[in-house]
This record gives sequence, structure tokens and C-alpha cells, in this order.
Amino acid sequence: MPQPMNVSQKLIKSHLIDGEMIPGKEIGLKIDQTLTQDATGTLVMLELEAMYLDRVKTEISVQYVDHNLLQTDFKNADDHMFLRSACQRFGIHYSRAGNGVSHPVHMERFGKPGKALVGSDSHTPAAGGLGMLAFGSGGLDVAFVMAGKPLYIKMPRILGVKLTGELPDWVSAKDVVLEMLRRYDVKGCRGMIIEYYGPGLKNLSAMDRHVIANMGTEMGATTTVFPSDEETRKFLKTQHREEDWSELLADEGARYDLNDEIELSKLEPLIACPSSPGNVVKVRDVEGKDIYQSVIGSSANPGFRDFWVVSEIVKGRTSHERVSFDINPTSRQMIQNLADTKAFGKLMQSGARFHQSGCMGCIGMGQAPASGQISLRTMPRNFPGRSGTEDDQVYLCSPETAAASALTGVITDPRDLEKLYDMDYPRFLPQETEIINTDLLDAPPENGSQIPLEKGPNIKSLPAFEAIKDAYELPCLLKMGDNISTDEILKAGAEVLPYRSNIPKISEYAYSVIDKSFYKRAREAEDKFGGHIVVGGENYAQGSSREHAALAPRYLKQVAVLAKSYARIGWQNLVNFGIVPLEFVKSGDYDEIEQDDVLAFDDFSNQIKQGKVIVQNKTKGSKYEMMHSMSKRQVEVVLAGGVIPYFKKKK
Amino acid sequence: MPQPMNVSQKLIKSHLIDGEMIPGKEIGLKIDQTLTQDATGTLVMLELEAMYLDRVKTEISVQYVDHNLLQTDFKNADDHMFLRSACQRFGIHYSRAGNGVSHPVHMERFGKPGKALVGSDSHTPAAGGLGMLAFGSGGLDVAFVMAGKPLYIKMPRILGVKLTGELPDWVSAKDVVLEMLRRYDVKGCRGMIIEYYGPGLKNLSAMDRHVIANMGTEMGATTTVFPSDEETRKFLKTQHREEDWSELLADEGARYDLNDEIELSKLEPLIACPSSPGNVVKVRDVEGKDIYQSVIGSSANPGFRDFWVVSEIVKGRTSHERVSFDINPTSRQMIQNLADTKAFGKLMQSGARFHQSGCMGCIGMGQAPASGQISLRTMPRNFPGRSGTEDDQVYLCSPETAAASALTGVITDPRDLEKLYDMDYPRFLPQETEIINTDLLDAPPENGSQIPLEKGPNIKSLPAFEAIKDAYELPCLLKMGDNISTDEILKAGAEVLPYRSNIPKISEYAYSVIDKSFYKRAREAEDKFGGHIVVGGENYAQGSSREHAALAPRYLKQVAVLAKSYARIGWQNLVNFGIVPLEFVKSGDYDEIEQDDVLAFDDFSNQIKQGKVIVQNKTKGSKYEMMHSMSKRQVEVVLAGGVIPYFKKKK
Repeated sequence: MPQPMNVSQKLIKSHLIDGEMIPGKEIGLKIDQTLTQDATGTLVMLELEAMYLDRVKTEISVQYVDHNLLQTDFKNADDHMFLRSACQRFGIHYSRAGNGVSHPVHMERFGKPGKALVGSDSHTPAAGGLGMLAFGSGGLDVAFVMAGKPLYIKMPRILGVKLTGELPDWVSAKDVVLEMLRRYDVKGCRGMIIEYYGPGLKNLSAMDRHVIANMGTEMGATTTVFPSDEETRKFLKTQHREEDWSELLADEGARYDLNDEIELSKLEPLIACPSSPGNVVKVRDVEGKDIYQSVIGSSANPGFRDFWVVSEIVKGRTSHERVSFDINPTSRQMIQNLADTKAFGKLMQSGARFHQSGCMGCIGMGQAPASGQISLRTMPRNFPGRSGTEDDQVYLCSPETAAASALTGVITDPRDLEKLYDMDYPRFLPQETEIINTDLLDAPPENGSQIPLEKGPNIKSLPAFEAIKDAYELPCLLKMGDNISTDEILKAGAEVLPYRSNIPKISEYAYSVIDKSFYKRAREAEDKFGGHIVVGGENYAQGSSREHAALAPRYLKQVAVLAKSYARIGWQNLVNFGIVPLEFVKSGDYDEIEQDDVLAFDDFSNQIKQGKVIVQNKTKGSKYEMMHSMSKRQVEVVLAGGVIPYFKKKK
Repeated sequence: MPQPMNVSQKLIKSHLIDGEMIPGKEIGLKIDQTLTQDATGTLVMLELEAMYLDRVKTEISVQYVDHNLLQTDFKNADDHMFLRSACQRFGIHYSRAGNGVSHPVHMERFGKPGKALVGSDSHTPAAGGLGMLAFGSGGLDVAFVMAGKPLYIKMPRILGVKLTGELPDWVSAKDVVLEMLRRYDVKGCRGMIIEYYGPGLKNLSAMDRHVIANMGTEMGATTTVFPSDEETRKFLKTQHREEDWSELLADEGARYDLNDEIELSKLEPLIACPSSPGNVVKVRDVEGKDIYQSVIGSSANPGFRDFWVVSEIVKGRTSHERVSFDINPTSRQMIQNLADTKAFGKLMQSGARFHQSGCMGCIGMGQAPASGQISLRTMPRNFPGRSGTEDDQVYLCSPETAAASALTGVITDPRDLEKLYDMDYPRFLPQETEIINTDLLDAPPENGSQIPLEKGPNIKSLPAFEAIKDAYELPCLLKMGDNISTDEILKAGAEVLPYRSNIPKISEYAYSVIDKSFYKRAREAEDKFGGHIVVGGENYAQGSSREHAALAPRYLKQVAVLAKSYARIGWQNLVNFGIVPLEFVKSGDYDEIEQDDVLAFDDFSNQIKQGKVIVQNKTKGSKYEMMHSMSKRQVEVVLAGGVIPYFKKKK
């Protein structure tokens, strides 16, 4: 009799084409769908061009334009034109600027239970809410998947989280994932798939599950998985796609590598304090602080319910006169449905600033808060400076908490609304159907392979990288602490993101959040030593999947990172671009290295192949033993100088 | 029997407190209302602070936040906080970020026939559509008006434009003002008030008149005036303010200094080609060109009708797949009315990108077009680079033309829609009433004079300027051609405008559109010569009223401008900040001066007082006779180093 399987195992097994399902071992997965967004997608398209790809080999690939919508000069608009031409050229669906945020739009229009999805955006696991196997990845991995290659990951352990009971009034899906973040912090789920199951599921809609799956990324999880059940079917029906539904449930008696449980009825409103999604406390613990801003929306609270509940809370009232009450609608379809149900009018009459649909403030593209002022957001992340304001004070919370606080002008537990305004909790009754809007969603032409790519002056070819050398003497240019995010390695925001297709230019911003002198010092180190290394603590390169956080340092001749541990996507991006991700065998050695120490690497290629690298600190006169977690395939990749030279070498 | 008067004369006479109504002579006017917007208003508030003002002395003053809405870092948000505190402090109404564009919101909520308005925005004359006497002015003039001082202008000549007949289908108010621009170009109405009269008026609503009055600025007019009649009353009624109406008509037999006539029924769709509002041709003459973008909105087409007609043209159809179809709603009230009448849904379903209400793309704050691509806009201006894209190709047209072109993807005469789509012209039937939305419009507290100003780190005090010296030897740092706009002297857009309250920083951008080396060279000239001069052609400093175009050069020690002629507001700003605006007596002398020539000014103060200045070109060995048009009061101002030192000296 076959072993009973959980949903994650079923999904992996049905896509496995290489390796064994043993936690920690590399496996190769066949991928059905991809998504790319504009901040990472232009590079993906340049990679497809460099690989001489004819047409994509996936069942469906979709390019979204949701990040760089501000268009303060030609660069973003040129990128939109380039992406459009690349979509026609390579056979990719094109979701035009302003159509909406990739994750909810993908779920609404393309998501299918049982399918595997890879996206060049770290919140791609949101599709797990629909019974999909969905991974965020660097753009290069996505490009290879589009070219028909497998996605390689390490087989994760499965964390089963049993949900029981029902959410109390004023508590919603966001509080569930904030509770997980309270328990696991920003790295507690690395190397894991989080699978939710149990009787509590029936009270969580597919879009609620999207909220929870989306922010699984914040715990470092490889992905999050939900079963496909009646709620999933209902959702697809509202999207006029009931025929795309299929059931996917765990077998009776299925087991998990790790186990946890959440009693939903015991939850109360939670909030992540500045400046980490893991700084979770009860709203009660921080209530009463003056706020400057309340922002509703983003891929972490994208559903119709999330906006509707806010509209019901604020209806007939006006947001506090001190508060900028910003609405980031997730899609044009959403806006139309809000308008159709009068929720839109209630929001407008309450003082909301209604923005174009897109990622907007979540990625620092607008609505940056004033200096030192508190901003409440329903978004997934509050890394330092990500809002666009350096000394920002961003709190993450549910739509209920954000709406209550918008009314009062201070951080407010939404349960207090019952007393403050004599208000009953507006409990959402799911709609039977939604208005569908696909005006800005273009299918590629059947025969587009002759369509030329439209490259504006800011779109530059990928730089070429050389293979690893046998010996180096390199300075440690930067010593960092734990949980350094890709936002700190290469910041997001309106100033920098427009250069994502221009590697020489974007590299000027490498590590600038941590140290503004980095670029200058890296250029000097390049002249003097031919490169540099950096030192990180635990969970290096967490957060956004943007591969520029590897590509820009590599362009500045970064040879290796020495860290205690890595976040999954960031680690993979390092390998893909030929930076060696070394790990301290004795974590105490981390303490000894200081900035500007010069480190020697001898017989480097061989040592990497052996899996053990001895590093000599010439400044301190000591030696450190380093290891790495790369597979044999990845060692070849990194020695070749990254996956593109590796691909070219193999051809 | 008294002389019969036209509307302009009546308005001026009822506000005259100094001087005589003789064209060309300086007059002082009592002003009832002011408006400021955020890009110019922060400086106005700093000026009020420098003047130790207690509370404003006007009947009503309103501060709008409509320009800097993108908020990609703390600066704009800090400014909003600062403006809010200043409004409370000085007794000013505060229209919060996202509430809408100043001109239409002011007309809807505060406009009153017969009143005089000054605004620190060049399109303030739009209020002339409501029978007001409305001037755009530099911020400092507005500050003085807020402090209860008169506004000084030169008594203009009155150009009477008789309108007859009725506009044909597919032709609207925008085409009327484009016809005026075709006749008068960008400087043909300097020193004039344009007053429209005649039987054609009855077919133009108050908001249509706003369109025409708004763009009178583009011809250099001092302002534009319409009578207050039944249409005016109807408009105020839709705004629930019928009681604010009063009649204001020209007397029987009233005469004008100059006369013109437009037969409305003979007009056809017109369009202003790149890169001047005066480059007007028939749409027929440029039809068929591929467009990248079509933008609806701005203060030049702000009315409900303008959005409604577009929604009727595109309803049930989708904008061309290559076109970015952008909607800039003018106010939140407008958005609500569009949603209420289903026009909103028609626009959304046609592929429109719906933006926050504000100036947005009109001032280069988003929606910049792609490199070298054509953008059609219903906006008032298309000066080079104003869109945010340096080599932009911006055309100005009516909502009808923009909507037709959005559907076809090429510049299209809207009359062709009849054949192309079997469409009848959607003729607008005026609404009886509108939904009123004042959520983001805050009245000041009764007693706010103790409220402290909230100054973020980017808000700096005004620099102090010294008096004119008696002798200079100064290099000509830049020689420019005709019609140099304030956008070229100090560009708009997301990169620069956030520094409008930080003069040292914003001065780095002075003349950068024309010559990127200007700032560096000005600093060198400051060290070597103690200052510089520049040379301009006709109509120097046309366009936007932003006083930074005088303040930044002055900070860089600009002593004088030598030009053939000046635009009114730009000229006044030069005087206000202590730059001497000299005019060539023989315009041929202009040809002789070259960049880097060194010019000597001797006995400068006395010569300015005498009204004649001899300039010696030390490099060429020649002499030029210069004059100026300053009043005696203005000569004192400029000699003192500008109006603030002058004010302080007098105290």
C-alpha cells in the first residue's frame, strides 16, 4: 500500500523529473507556468534573448507591469514598450501597466490547482492559496524554466500547520500569518514548505489563503501550500473559470516533517512593528500612537473582501484629518467591482486617496511617509527604507486595523470600533461572481518570433562574467549583521528600480542603504585587488527575489560572500551569477573578521569542488574553515562564472 | 453720462486702490482671494513666516496640494505636513494631497463672480471663466496679497473677442482656445486681458469657459475674463452654491482696445504640435501618426463634461493595445460623480489607467512618455521635456481628439468616428447637480496663530540677498533664443520639484535643460566675478509662474538679464528677487553679445533710476543701450535686492 501523502508531496511528486524527495537534496521540477514582473522581467527578457530562445516552452507565461508605474521620465515607459515587444516575440501574455499586481491577477485569471508556477517575484508562493506549487525565484531561474529547463531547488521539509476553529470578529487572514511570523520570525521556515490543513480551512476563502501564502515568504519558507477544495472551486467560479478547478486534498493519514497548530478563535489583532515583518506584537501593545498614514492594498491583502471590509468600516465617516488614507487597488478588475458594489463611493467619501492599481507604496513607488512618521500598511514588508523614506516607521497589519486607525488617527485595535462608533463587525458575504476585466491583458500573437525587441536607450545588454580563478587576495569590503535583506543589498524605490535593465548604472547603488561609500570602495578594490568579498550573518539576502542583489555586486567583482547562513532565493541568485556563497563551519569565526581585512583563497576551484574552503586572514594571521551547500551542478555553474557562461559552455 | 464699460474694466475699477486705468501704467488692486499650490506654496509660507504675518487678510485663501503627489521619499510628505501646519497657523483653507487640481476645485468650491483672485500658479486666470478677475503671479506677490497688500500690475489693454454661432459636433472649448493660439501664438496677448463676449457665449458652459480662460496664459495674456451670466448661475447651482452668483455683464456699447471675432460654427478639431502650445495645426494635417499615449484631464480640460464625452466615445470599446490611455481626474469630487453616473465604469472597461486626482503628467509627475514616442494630452502645455521625457513629442488637443486617437492608436480627427464606428457625437446634457465631496478640504481653526510650523529636514529658510552694487564686470554665462520658458530656466518634474523649499539644492538645476554645465560655470563666475548675467531673446521667462526660475539664478548671483522682451510673470519675479530685467533699445545689439563676453555696468543704481543703462562689452569693445519697464516702486525694490529686503528696510 502506498504511503499516504500530504498536498505538498503530491504536488512535488507530480512535477518531479530529477532527484529524490529527500529533504535537503536537490530536485528538478517540471514547471507549468511562469510569471515575471517588470522590475525583474526586463532582465529575464534580456536573458531569453541571450539564450537565443524562440518561443517559451511553458503552458503559460505572463509578464506583469506592476512595479514601475510612476513614469517620471522615459525609462519606465521604454521598459513597458520593451516588455510588450518581448512578450510578442517570445509568446508571453502581457499584463499592461496599471492592469494590476501580478499575484492576485495571476490567481484570478491563470491560477489552476495542481499546477506548478515559478515567478521572478518573491511573493509568487501566494498562488499556493489556490492549491498550486508556486516558487519565487531569481529571474535567471525563471528564464531557464521558460526555456523548458527544470527548476532546481532543495527538497524542503514540510511543516504542517493545523487550523481549527473560526476567526473572531475584527480578526482576519492577515492576523493568521502575523501569528505565524510571531512564532517563526523572518527565517524560521527556511527550507520548508508550510502546508495548512484542518477544519479551520473551511472558514478561509481562497483569497484569505492567498494572504497567508503570500507572506509565507516573510518567514523564509520555500513556499506555502493549501489544498484545493470547495473554497477553491467557489473562487474560480466568481472568476468565471469553474472548469479550471480540480480537487487536491491530502490523503487520509498524511504526515508532515514538522507540526504546528493555530486555534483561529483565539487570535486577536496583531501588528508587525518597524522594521521587520517578524517584529509582531498585539495591536493592544502599541495602540494610541499617532499615525501619519494608513495604506490599504498590495499583494498581501489583495482581495475584494479586504477593500470591502474597509469601505464598510469607514462608510459615512471621514478619515482623521491628519491621516493620508491611501488605497492601492490591486487590479483594474478590483476597482470595477468596487465601483459596481458602491464600496468605491464609500471609500471616496471617507477621504481615501485612490491610486492606480499596482504595487505602488509596497515597493517604494509613491506614498512614502513623512520623516519619522508612522505609516500603517496592509503590505507584506517593512524593511528599513523600503517605503522610500529612510527613517521610516512602517507597521504591517490587517485591513481592519488599518481602517480603524485611519478613522481615529492613532494605532487602534479594530475591536474598539464597537464601542467608539457603535459598529458591528461587517462580516463579508462572498459574492457569487465578479466583473471580469481583461482590457489590459494581451495574449501574444501566434507567430511573433520575428517581432523585433524595442530597446530604449536605458536598456543595456547583460555584461559578460569570467570564470572563477584559482587564487585571490581580497579585502572584506563590508561586514554585516543578521537578516540583511535584498532591499539593503540593492534598494528598491523610484530612484533605483528604473535602472534594473542597466547593470553598470544600478551597481552604483549596491549596499548603499548600509554604506554609501560602498560603490567607490568596490571600484578601488577592483583596481587594487581585482575584486572583493563581503561578510554576512544569519539569513543573508532575505526578502525580495530581485537578482540585481547578486548581479550588481558581481558586476563590481564580488567573488564570494562569507555568511553564517543564507535565505533561499538570495543564495540561488548568488550561485546563478557566479558569486560563491560560503558558510562558516564555526560561526565564531564570523566575529573575528573585520572590515578591510584581506583574505586569501588558494586552490579555490578545487576546494569548492571538495566542498571545503580554507580562507586565510592575512591581516589577522588566522584561518577559517568554510563550507557550502551547492549541488554538483551548482558547483559547475559557479566555477564557470554563473549560469549564463555555464549554459554557453555546454552548448 | 458715464462711459459704458466692458467686464474687465468693471472688475478692475471695483478693485482699484492705486494708479489710473491707463494701459501700460502700474495699478494697485485690492485682492479678495488667493490660491497657492504645493510646488510654489511652501515658499509662500516661508515668506509669510519671514514677514511675521499673524493671519491672512484676504476674504479667503486656499492652499492646494496637487503637484507633488508621487511621494517617492520623505520630501513631498514632509511638505504636506508643513503646508497643513502653515494653513492652520495663518488661517488658510487646506486642500489635502489628492483632493484635486487647484483651479477646478477653487472654481467649484470658492469661485465667486466679481471677486479678484491671485494665485501662485500661472493658470489661475481659469477663474475668469466664472466672471472673476484672476491673476497668476509669483509666490512673493501672493504672499504680499495675503498680508493685505495690493497686487501691482501694469494696466493691460483689453482684447475683446466676439464669439458667434455654435460649435459643430466633435469640436469643443479646447478647440476655441487652440484657435486663439493659432492666431496669437505664445506671446501675442502679452499685456492684454482677453475678454470674450457675444452671442456664441450662451453655448459655452462655465466649465467650457474655464478651459478657454485657463489657456489664455499660453498666449501671454495677463488674464482672461468672461461675463457672469445664466451659464455661470447654472454652474454654481450644480455646486450647491447658487447664492454665490451675481450678474456681471458688459455695458451696452462697451468698447475694447483691440478686437477679434471667432465664428464657432466654422471651427474644426485643432492640435498643438511639439513643443509649443502655439504650434497649432488642424488635426487633419497630422492625422495617422502612431501614438504611444493619450492623457485625459488637467486644469485645461477639468470638467465633468470632458471626462463624460470621453467615456461615451470609448464605451464598449477598448483603447488600442499599443496606447497607454491615462485618466488624470481633476478632483475626488469628479471621480465620485463619474462613478455615480457610470462614466467611470465605461472608462475602466475601455482600458483606462485611472490616476490619483492632481496635476500628475501635466507637470511631469508621472506618465512620462517613452523615448521619441507621441503623447496626446488635453493639457495646457507641451514645452520641451515638461512631460519628464527629454525628447518628448507631446501634442495638445481636445478630449474628443484624445479619445478618438486612443481608440485608433493614431492621431485621429474625432469627426472620423462617425464613419469608423458608426458613432453619433455624444452631446453633453448639463447635469442639474453634482455630488459634493469636501472630505479633504479642511477649514483652518479659528485660533491657530500659536500652531508651530512643522518643518521637515528638506525645508530650509529663505537665503538673504544683498542690495545692487554700483559697478560690476560680469560674464554672459548663457545666450538664449526667443520664448525661453520657466520650465527651461528651472525645470519641473519629479527630480527637481521636491527641492522647491530648498533653494541651495534646487539652484543646482538652474538652466540645466539648456546647458548642463550652467551650475558649475555659475559657481566659477561667482568666485571670479562675483556674479553673472544671461542674455535672452523675445518673451523671456514665459510659462509657469514658479518663482524659483528667478530665485535659483539669483542664489547663483545672477545680477541682470538682458533680453529683447519678457513674459509678465517671469519679469515680475525677476524684479521681486532683485534681478534687473534690462531690455535692448536696439534689438540688433542682441546679436553681438556672445557667451563668455564680459560686460561692465558702471554707476548702475543711478542708471537704473534714470531708466537707461549703458552696458560695455569689454570683450568686443562695444556699448549697448538698455532700458527697463519697472515702475518707480519696482526700481526701489530691485535696488534693495528684492522685495523681501525692501519690505524689511521699510519696516
